Amino acid sequence: MYIIVVYDVDVKRVAKVHRFLRTHLHWRQNSVFEGEVSRAQLYEIKRTLEGLIGDGDSVLIYELPTGNFTLHVIGTDKNPAGEII
Amino acid sequence: MYIIVVYDVDVKRVAKVHRFLRTHLHWRQNSVFEGEVSRAQLYEIKRTLEGLIGDGDSVLIYELPTGNFTLHVIGTDKNPAGEII
Repeated sequence: MYIIVVYDVDVKRVAKVHRFLRTHLHWRQNSVFEGEVSRAQLYEIKRTLEGLIGDGDSVLIYELPTGNFTLHVIGTDKNPAGEII
Repeated sequence: MYIIVVYDVDVKRVAKVHRFLRTHLHWRQNSVFEGEVSRAQLYEIKRTLEGLIGDGDSVLIYELPTGNFTLHVIGTDKNPAGEII
């Protein structure tokens, strides 16, 4: 499956969340990551994020069937991925 | 179709972009909007955003087949949508 992760976390925790997501996914923009994962990896990512975030923080994970979307970029493409489907 | 819009724009233009997207989509989190649109509406949204943004700004629009995704929320659900599919 393919996931898009968007986080909105307190500035104190941004670096930690960013560093963790970078090890699993492709950084796309500001607080957006995306990439292909297995069900086990998605479970692991959710579990780890639950441990990293704090009060008032929010992380959205959109789970899509692989390759079943179109990405439109308006303005600067901050980090186009070679491996993106 | 269903779209997820994530913007990363200069602070000077955030309010304008936010206000415009709010008229078409459901606000989801920080700089994330989503909603059901027609092809004509998507075209209009893209065209208007191109006019609103400036140097270094970036807006990503993920276009998905309607209803073909699962949303996982970790932490606070900042604005759950009644009408979300």
